[in-house]
Amino acid sequence: MTNDDGITAPGIQLLAESLKDKYEVMVVAPAQEMSASGHAITIRMPLWVKEERIDGRFLGHSVVGTPADCVKLGLDVLSPGKIDLIISGLNRGPNLGTDVLYSGTVSGALEGALQGIPSMAVSMTSWDDPRYETGVYVVKFLIEHFPWKDLPEFCALNVNVPSVEPEKLRGYRLTKQSKRRYRDYFEARRDPFGNTYYWMLGEVVEDDEDPESDYLAVKEGYVSITPITVFMTDYKLLEELRRRLDFGDKGDR
Amino acid sequence: MTNDDGITAPGIQLLAESLKDKYEVMVVAPAQEMSASGHAITIRMPLWVKEERIDGRFLGHSVVGTPADCVKLGLDVLSPGKIDLIISGLNRGPNLGTDVLYSGTVSGALEGALQGIPSMAVSMTSWDDPRYETGVYVVKFLIEHFPWKDLPEFCALNVNVPSVEPEKLRGYRLTKQSKRRYRDYFEARRDPFGNTYYWMLGEVVEDDEDPESDYLAVKEGYVSITPITVFMTDYKLLEELRRRLDFGDKGDR
Repeated sequence: MTNDDGITAPGIQLLAESLKDKYEVMVVAPAQEMSASGHAITIRMPLWVKEERIDGRFLGHSVVGTPADCVKLGLDVLSPGKIDLIISGLNRGPNLGTDVLYSGTVSGALEGALQGIPSMAVSMTSWDDPRYETGVYVVKFLIEHFPWKDLPEFCALNVNVPSVEPEKLRGYRLTKQSKRRYRDYFEARRDPFGNTYYWMLGEVVEDDEDPESDYLAVKEGYVSITPITVFMTDYKLLEELRRRLDFGDKGDR
Repeated sequence: MTNDDGITAPGIQLLAESLKDKYEVMVVAPAQEMSASGHAITIRMPLWVKEERIDGRFLGHSVVGTPADCVKLGLDVLSPGKIDLIISGLNRGPNLGTDVLYSGTVSGALEGALQGIPSMAVSMTSWDDPRYETGVYVVKFLIEHFPWKDLPEFCALNVNVPSVEPEKLRGYRLTKQSKRRYRDYFEARRDPFGNTYYWMLGEVVEDDEDPESDYLAVKEGYVSITPITVFMTDYKLLEELRRRLDFGDKGDR
């Protein structure tokens, strides 16, 4: 298990505790919050690792690094044996639409997929009232009922859970990553020495009308499950450019 | 223009200088090297901006942040008018295969695409001998001959340039993001106080046999141009899961 909210976050701790009865759980998570860290990895600095305990009980390893660092180090160094499934979460806040690009949570799952391990990112779609118990319920359901063992290499699941009680979930829906995105704006401030600095803020834009959109599923009370890949080639555009350009595969200049 | 090697890097400075005669150039780049920063953005800290000069001449703005931060702040705050094209580079080192996921350079272009501006990431595929003049030559060629004005929203170009003299380039090839990736390993060390830390290292794995692969084009002396998208849904897997699962769109639980 990893996350991007850091090893001290309630989402990962509750999930680890809840699965320990039935499964062997290993936690490797960032020492600090790494939200919006994208698929960053740490290559110019070494990685520091620490054993973390709660009330004396071993919880897992914290890494001064990103979720992708945690997965790599977890698999290569810290794991005592084969890992069957990587779960990145439970994240506080949604990872819908273009969030996928910025999300440290999703990058944890994609890194697992890159390493050939079935992986899923699981996010609670509310910031204020994340209801992690519902996330635990969903993860348990997916572990038992989703054919995650058959996830192909390089592919992962991006799961978003509505913030309602488990019995109020309407079900599960396989979805597409939507074009849900942000309209950014910046708030300028001046420090005591006269220098300007900027806070990045954004308003969410939800104008994707595809009924299979990830955020629509959540809005309608369903758990959204989007199969995602590390391959970002735009095949439609590739074909179009090939038709149009006279340097294609021919190597003319 | 932005990059992930930082505003002091020769790649961005040479490119900016070389295009200034003919085009209006604006540089907004990280204050420090941000390689492998993925598509990270800075949301828990404010962004500091500084005007940078070389020998008294204005070069551009540096931002204590990531390439995606630079693009957002550049477009929203620093730009005096409409931006026609965002170029992220010239990067030192390739961005081929799964590099796309980790690359700060590519994230600069994808962020531009998200903001609806035609964007390209341009990388020199050699670390030791990047030959930025060839990169400048390629960028000039693409500005004049590539229909970048027609790039659809949410799509960008990932360009990789072989490290040879311009006249030795064999041409341009439209390619796919390959599964070129790394086999990671970690080197453990001990600090003077007895704590262990790890350096992440990796060996490149180039076993993708698709003749349209990005890295093959470069190996064969072509400039590789891969159209990429911010949408990471795996449609093939989506269809397969839909056929197979009895909770699909129906919302059964």
